[in-house]
Amino acid sequence: MKLVQFEGFSFVEGGITAAKGFAASGLHCGIRANKSKKDLGMLLADHNCAAAGMYTQNKVKGAPIAVTKANIADGFCRGIIVNSGIANTCNADGIEKAEAMCKIAAKATGLSDKDFAVSSTGVIGQPLPLEPIEKHADALVKALSPQNHADFASAIMTTDTVMKEVAVSFTLSGKTCHIGGCAKGSGMIMPNMATMLCFLTTDVAITPDLLQIALKQVVDETFNMVSVDGDTSTNDTVLIFASGDAGNAEIQVQEDDFRTFVNALFAVLMNLSRMIAKDGEGATKLLECTVIGAYSKEQAKIVAKSVINSSLLKAAMFGADANWGRVLCAIGYAETDVDVNLVDVTFASENGAIEVCKMGAGIDFSEEIAKKVLSADEVKILVDLHDGEETATAWGCDLTYDYVRINGDYRS
Amino acid sequence: MKLVQFEGFSFVEGGITAAKGFAASGLHCGIRANKSKKDLGMLLADHNCAAAGMYTQNKVKGAPIAVTKANIADGFCRGIIVNSGIANTCNADGIEKAEAMCKIAAKATGLSDKDFAVSSTGVIGQPLPLEPIEKHADALVKALSPQNHADFASAIMTTDTVMKEVAVSFTLSGKTCHIGGCAKGSGMIMPNMATMLCFLTTDVAITPDLLQIALKQVVDETFNMVSVDGDTSTNDTVLIFASGDAGNAEIQVQEDDFRTFVNALFAVLMNLSRMIAKDGEGATKLLECTVIGAYSKEQAKIVAKSVINSSLLKAAMFGADANWGRVLCAIGYAETDVDVNLVDVTFASENGAIEVCKMGAGIDFSEEIAKKVLSADEVKILVDLHDGEETATAWGCDLTYDYVRINGDYRS
Repeated sequence: MKLVQFEGFSFVEGGITAAKGFAASGLHCGIRANKSKKDLGMLLADHNCAAAGMYTQNKVKGAPIAVTKANIADGFCRGIIVNSGIANTCNADGIEKAEAMCKIAAKATGLSDKDFAVSSTGVIGQPLPLEPIEKHADALVKALSPQNHADFASAIMTTDTVMKEVAVSFTLSGKTCHIGGCAKGSGMIMPNMATMLCFLTTDVAITPDLLQIALKQVVDETFNMVSVDGDTSTNDTVLIFASGDAGNAEIQVQEDDFRTFVNALFAVLMNLSRMIAKDGEGATKLLECTVIGAYSKEQAKIVAKSVINSSLLKAAMFGADANWGRVLCAIGYAETDVDVNLVDVTFASENGAIEVCKMGAGIDFSEEIAKKVLSADEVKILVDLHDGEETATAWGCDLTYDYVRINGDYRS
Repeated sequence: MKLVQFEGFSFVEGGITAAKGFAASGLHCGIRANKSKKDLGMLLADHNCAAAGMYTQNKVKGAPIAVTKANIADGFCRGIIVNSGIANTCNADGIEKAEAMCKIAAKATGLSDKDFAVSSTGVIGQPLPLEPIEKHADALVKALSPQNHADFASAIMTTDTVMKEVAVSFTLSGKTCHIGGCAKGSGMIMPNMATMLCFLTTDVAITPDLLQIALKQVVDETFNMVSVDGDTSTNDTVLIFASGDAGNAEIQVQEDDFRTFVNALFAVLMNLSRMIAKDGEGATKLLECTVIGAYSKEQAKIVAKSVINSSLLKAAMFGADANWGRVLCAIGYAETDVDVNLVDVTFASENGAIEVCKMGAGIDFSEEIAKKVLSADEVKILVDLHDGEETATAWGCDLTYDYVRINGDYRS
């Protein structure tokens, strides 16, 4: 998938270990039956890092979230242990087992269990077996290396069909800096949360407080604008670790360096968001809805998310059917006031652009050209509300037979 | 589909003309290409009736809704003209054309255009041709008869696979009374609206004000608790006409007769709601989520609708997969406060019942029995919040390959 470029930032290899000071590993320990699928990963920093996190807004929260929150409450953390296959959610002994995962990581590394964040993703409500994790902890630690970022990235995948890694390089006070990370996420994805699992590292020196502020700002514009199926997961977690190894003057105020950092973080998370949306369960194409002319940022976001969430529109996009009435319909039930008689809608892609609705009413257009535009694997839906200057973008995907196939029998 | 029975009410044949004083007709006029599909219907009362309506909450409203609202604003109406195939929504000349439909009906019947309600359902944003309606208006009026209720009921169908008619007979002040009607609806269906098209008649004598109150009460518990795909349509309309021909003492207060009337209306709309949910686009089974133990009616409704709306759960139900974690997940993101650690979940059907979650955590259960329970074509999801005495029920359907097929290419 082609990355969206941003001036001043170069995309680099290395994912979660592109930044200086981090090692990663991943392997198959046996939580999943399929032996070719890695299901256990570890990230370890050379020393304690500033840390920040965002978590699901679902009231049913995976047990690992409570443990991670407690362990990074002081603003610092050293490593992450994560498994896929079982979510460790809705189990009576969930907290106990999440703590046990940290203890296993601590024992194998010679650190404290409080130095670790923990995450799990997979089926809800099945008991998490600790034995496979215990048995493979030493091998996991032994494999830790800056070279093994992809092993970590693949260990967190569930129904994902592609690995999702992005890293950028940029300059702060004359020093070369990096932000990089990986994400997993394909189903149970819905706006208004710190979506799915995403682990990030940076070698920038920044205070924990500003790291948290930057993370929230960017997540609100990226992951929280992604929807695959309207289902908000129980385990969504975004974590970022800052090692400070780049040697820049520590970011302590929200001025130029902070803004550069936020922009670099946006370049990473915006591209990871597009990857998650495009890899939505069963998806054949990425949908990107950009709303312009809104009277407020909030209005723009609500309208963009409502459009991207419409099952009917998603199915129409699968069929490359320019059924723009479904765009209007979704704008009409968005929970904000919109004068639908001012709305213009345009479909666009690498194959061209075609206006289909002006002032809330249909206009003559070539169905043939529309079909061509909508047949691309990345489709933009442009909505102009003609009611102000604010804009927002949301990402999603089409609704396909395969979404049903994947989710009709996920546990088997 | 088996009707849910209610004591004191007998289901009878006749649909929208089961009540005394009404005639109906339906035919193919040519709005739809398929000649075997009726696309134009008329209902006509012998004399002016008390009338009440409820309409979509989408801000994009079909033009016919504005005209219908104006024409029944005085609480009385005589007939309905309705077409399927084109929604007459998001067209610059929509209002004009909806008024023209009333004028055509008026000319053919010798009545005033203000005597008619008008509805349209189908594709949004395509211009509505008036010629086919004009050309067939006389034939439509000529065919009017109490016998032709099914022609009317089939003329409003779009992607519906079955006709949806229900009528009950009951007694008020010693007089035999009836309420009957028909509905269409299969996609673009979401809670919190007067769902889809539903036309009802009764021979009960009741004031327009109380008719409106009864309609709202019952729609809130029935149609507004149905969701097929989370998309709130632009044209949803429920209309009820009361002829008074049963000869009962006019209902003027909210006492015993009013309550009997409300219960009879519930018997009709609850069964029509189940029919709509079961005939959801591509559905193979009806899902019924009943929430008990809620601290308020509102909480019970929000939780029941959140469960019935989850794409992930709907897909799991298609696969007869007892993935109860998705029920918990949907309860967790429902917009109400729930103590998820108190929640019990049971799946039930004509094949038995099986408890799968107690106090928010998984319990051991036989996957084999669960599969059997979930393989029925009507599945109940019982949620006990253990937090009060209130209950609510919502209806929906599974998410299947055919939903995608139908909606990927609806306009073609």
